[in-house]
Parts: sequence; C-alpha cells; structure tokens
Amino acid sequence: MIIDCHGHYTTAPAGHQRFREAQIAHFKDPSLPPATRSQISDDEIRESLENNQLKLQRQRGSDLTLFSPRASAMGHHIGDESVSVEWTRANNDLIHRVVELYPENFVGVCQLPQSPGVPITNSVHELTRCVRELGFVGCNLNPDPSGGHWNSPPLTDRYWYPIYERMVALDVPAMVHVSASCNPNFHATGAHYINADTTAFMQFIQGDLFRDFPTLKFIIPHGGGAVPYHWGRYRGLADMLKRPPLSEHVMKNVYFDTCVYHQPGIDLLFQVINLDNILFGSEMVGAVRGIDPETGFYFDDTKRYIAALSIPESDKTRIFEKNARRIFPRLDALLRKRGR
Amino acid sequence: MIIDCHGHYTTAPAGHQRFREAQIAHFKDPSLPPATRSQISDDEIRESLENNQLKLQRQRGSDLTLFSPRASAMGHHIGDESVSVEWTRANNDLIHRVVELYPENFVGVCQLPQSPGVPITNSVHELTRCVRELGFVGCNLNPDPSGGHWNSPPLTDRYWYPIYERMVALDVPAMVHVSASCNPNFHATGAHYINADTTAFMQFIQGDLFRDFPTLKFIIPHGGGAVPYHWGRYRGLADMLKRPPLSEHVMKNVYFDTCVYHQPGIDLLFQVINLDNILFGSEMVGAVRGIDPETGFYFDDTKRYIAALSIPESDKTRIFEKNARRIFPRLDALLRKRGR
Repeated sequence: MIIDCHGHYTTAPAGHQRFREAQIAHFKDPSLPPATRSQISDDEIRESLENNQLKLQRQRGSDLTLFSPRASAMGHHIGDESVSVEWTRANNDLIHRVVELYPENFVGVCQLPQSPGVPITNSVHELTRCVRELGFVGCNLNPDPSGGHWNSPPLTDRYWYPIYERMVALDVPAMVHVSASCNPNFHATGAHYINADTTAFMQFIQGDLFRDFPTLKFIIPHGGGAVPYHWGRYRGLADMLKRPPLSEHVMKNVYFDTCVYHQPGIDLLFQVINLDNILFGSEMVGAVRGIDPETGFYFDDTKRYIAALSIPESDKTRIFEKNARRIFPRLDALLRKRGR
Repeated sequence: MIIDCHGHYTTAPAGHQRFREAQIAHFKDPSLPPATRSQISDDEIRESLENNQLKLQRQRGSDLTLFSPRASAMGHHIGDESVSVEWTRANNDLIHRVVELYPENFVGVCQLPQSPGVPITNSVHELTRCVRELGFVGCNLNPDPSGGHWNSPPLTDRYWYPIYERMVALDVPAMVHVSASCNPNFHATGAHYINADTTAFMQFIQGDLFRDFPTLKFIIPHGGGAVPYHWGRYRGLADMLKRPPLSEHVMKNVYFDTCVYHQPGIDLLFQVINLDNILFGSEMVGAVRGIDPETGFYFDDTKRYIAALSIPESDKTRIFEKNARRIFPRLDALLRKRGR
C-alpha cells in the first residue's frame, strides 16, 4: 500500500474560490454583501479530482493521499481572524466531502484558523472538530501566519504550547507548512516554503521543545528544506550550541517527506536521513506541475525516484506505508478498521 | 594554487569590537562620548591570524583566502546609516591592513555601508574606494540589511541597479551575504544565511536581471543554500514561470561556493551543478568550528570533500583556482602581476 503524506486540494471547484473572493471583497468593503459558501455539487468535486489527483494516483500507482486544503490559499494573513476562521472551516469541510466521496483514496488533514497576532489557542477548537467530528488524522501548522513577515514567535516558544497539548492529546502530527507569501522577496513555492522548512528545523535545534512534549511529531515537508543537503552544518551547529546529537534531540520527533523533485536530491535524503524519519510524499498536484525534459517524467512523480533507490523492498515499504501508519496513528487505526 | 573564495575576519583583535560597542553605545545614548577607532598594532593583527586562519591555511593546504569582514558582525540593521558607514570603513580598513601584512595569503573583499531604507547608491563610493584605493577584488552584498525582516526590494529590483552598474564598471562580483538576524525566528548561520541564499536564487529566476546586466556576477555562498538539493524544483519552477532554462537564464552569472559541511552534500553539488559554476570556499573560521565525530576532521575543512571526489585533477584545478581567477578578474590580474 502506498500512502502519499502530502497532497493539497489545489484543484477545488471554481465556486469555492468565488466564495473566497467574495469574502475578501466584503472584508475590504463591508458595504458589499457578506459572502456565503457556494453550492458545490458532488459531481463538481468528483470532476475536480478525477482528472487530477485520482488520475495521477492511478497512473503513478499510489493508493491513498493525506489530503489537506491548498497550502498557498490558506492565506492566514488575509483579512482578520474571523475571515480566517470562516475560510478555514469552509476548506476543511470541503476536504471532508472529498474524503466522504473517496474514502479509499483520501484521508483528511486540516488547515488551522491561524491569524497574525492571535493566540494559537483559538485554533484548538477547529483541530478538535476536524479530528473528532470529521475523522482527520493530522493538521498543517503555519509557523508564519503573516505570510512572509515572520513576526510570530519561534515554534519552540510557549506561545504554541496550547496547540501542541491538543495535538498530543489527540495523537495527531502537524506538517509545518506556510502559505502564500505577501513579501515580494519570497516566491511562495520557490523560497518561502523551503525557507520555512529550514527555519523550523533550526528552531527545533535551538530549543528544547521535545523535552516538554516527548510525543509531539512534526513533518517538515519538501524534503526538509535545505536541511539534508546541509546535514553536516546542522550536526555541527547542534554541537556548537551544546545540544545533544540530532538523533536524540530532534529526530525522534521530526520527519521529512520526499517532495524533492530530482533523483540526486532523493539519493542524498536517503543517504543522510534515517529511514524511519522519511515519509513518501509528492505534493501533487502542487508546486511543480511540468515534465522534466531530462527524464521525460513529471518532476513531482517522486515515487519513481524512490523506486530507483538501491534499498531493499522492505525498506521501501517503510517509506511508502509503515512510517506513515506509525506517525499518523489515527490513519493506522482507520485503515485497520477497514482491514487494510 | 588553492584559492578559498569565502573567508571572514571572525577573529579580529578585541579592540575592534570595543570600538563597535562604544559606537553602538553612543548611538543609543548620545551623551556618551563618540567612539574612536581603537589602536590596533600589527602584532595584534598577526596574532589574531597566525593561530587561526593562517594556521588552518597551512594545515589544510590552501594558499589564498578572499577575505572580508565578519559577516554576522556587519550588522547593517544596527544604528543608522552613519553608524553603518563608520563601522564599514573601519572593517574594510582593517581587512586592508591584513592584506598589507600578508599579501600572499589574503586578498580583500569589502563590506558595504548598507542601512535599511537607504538608497544603495550610498554604497557605491565605498565599493569604489575599496577596489580602486585598497585593491579589493569583490564585495559582499546584503539582500536584507534589516537583519531578518526582509523589507528591502528583491535583488532584481531597480533599487539595486546603481551598485550593479558600479560592480560591472569595476569588474567585481558580489557574494550575496546577509548578516546577523535580529528576528528570533532565524538563527543566523543555521537559518538566515541559508534562507537568503535560496531566496536570492529564486529572485534571479523570477526576474530578468542578467538581461540588463549580462556581465554581472554573484556568488551564492553556503553551496547555494537549498538550491542544488532542490535542483529539480528550480528547473521545474523556471519552466512553470516560462523562464528560459536555468543554464541560460541564471547560471551564466551565478556561482555557488563549496561551504557544505559533509561529503554527501558536496557530492550532490558536483552532481547537479556545472563545474564552471562552483568555487572552492570554506567559510573558515566561521559558522561551524568543531570536528565532525563521524570523520574526525573539521566540518569546515571542505577541501577534503573535494579531494575525495572522483573527478579528474584538471577539474579540481578549476574548482580550486581557475574559476576564482575567471570570476574575480582583478584577483587574476593581481596574481599575474606577481607571477602566480
């Protein structure tokens, strides 16, 4: 069984985006009518997936995607907290409908109603709702809800503890995932995403978060940002900062996905990072949608890169399935209940 | 001959730092006396180098370091422009004294008197002074003089053009190098540096800077940040953004150094990046000063990683010497004059 831990609903029906636009318009000009969620039919949802994620699942041979709202559209920096809450609920509810229509193909991961300057406590309720009521198995946590101004406290700050307490209580991990960038310095998928991954990892080195939360788990996407490429630098910095070795200090709680879009990058990832810390992910349909002229295959068909690795099949099974089931215990329970 | 393109004066005599502290104290409280540069003897400078950079040059077998002021201490965000100008001149003058004392071992690269919100035009004079009067061969350009708030325009913005025009006129490249971070999200050497490298590269993809400046040259340090590890992502993003292939669009003007502190990272760098675009660098004495317990050698002894590559000796000569002489024409001219 092949579980893709990183997929976003980047192809949601147009009505969903119209709702978002009306919502933003009303925020900017309250004389405009308040937005109401668009009527989206099951057929529209099916169509949005059949020609995209489901087609690619079949073509590439993956079975199940941990599916969350489009990351770049979370837009926590847009409007105010009430805008974020409304949009977040609409996004998560839409993911829930996807999962209801295709329970064999998708399992839900939620967005949180973060908003700059607002206590993270305010996101606890939505996380709980998504896990308890909608059956989601994880969440995406945005370390920079400002969209590129980076004015929230580091992830190791007590500011974040209320959401960590609930994550631990619910036994769900978070993927550290920023949204769009409103800072012209940072291209969203080319700089902001990768920088956030690198930044989060270094924060974990500096802090002592996992002493306070020994069972807290994070997935750092996009292959861990710059971290595996600079693994020597991070080992050396941990040493200089008098932290324990990374294997004890961070890597009992942190996992990287395989969203690295060429073979040499995947080779490096597997060379330096323990197999137990790597989860199969593709980010499809996502950041890079084209075909690599050097290979003739889609850049984001990351399953091919893993298939090409000279590691035993049993290790590939860990990457494709077992690690995800271990790191997402609610996913495992759900699959077991179905006899998978 | 082995040229290290990336070395900082991280070991300057204590008097230099005392001057800086007095300068900042006076800025914060103008009733305190204005700072004056400390008297630093030639012997103090010799001592600061003999037991550090020079010892390591001899031990590791490198010949010449392109030497610039300590990057994390540039502190463009501290004080105001006049503080930055005074500190920058003191730093560059100190580098000049190093070069005068050890002309065989060091060649100067300058810091610029950047300051948040100030036109980059104001840095043109100091660049010119360092190149024409002090014999420097390049500069360090800070894409984020705010120290982690990222509120300057992207490097492709016309804001930066005055310094590019002078760089082209003087035929000197710039290393894209941020300084310390005053944003608690970003550890300086573990996140801010690497993020800046990644960010700059993506800005170059998005823009058309090298159409306007076909002979402008940048070194992106720390092995290009996250870029080589995500080379497929960047090739794919260039394609999605309808930019020309990276080899034409960016890589005629952009070079990566070898400040990557483990063998697998260096292997990847050489696997995906053209040899003509890689410069030997170690960043010593710098970000990571310890010994790697896995190898028994210093993390930042990057010469060892290159020595271990299975590439012809003639290719190693390009990395160690020829590329640096090509990319820093004033260095080449200076060495030729000396018969080296």
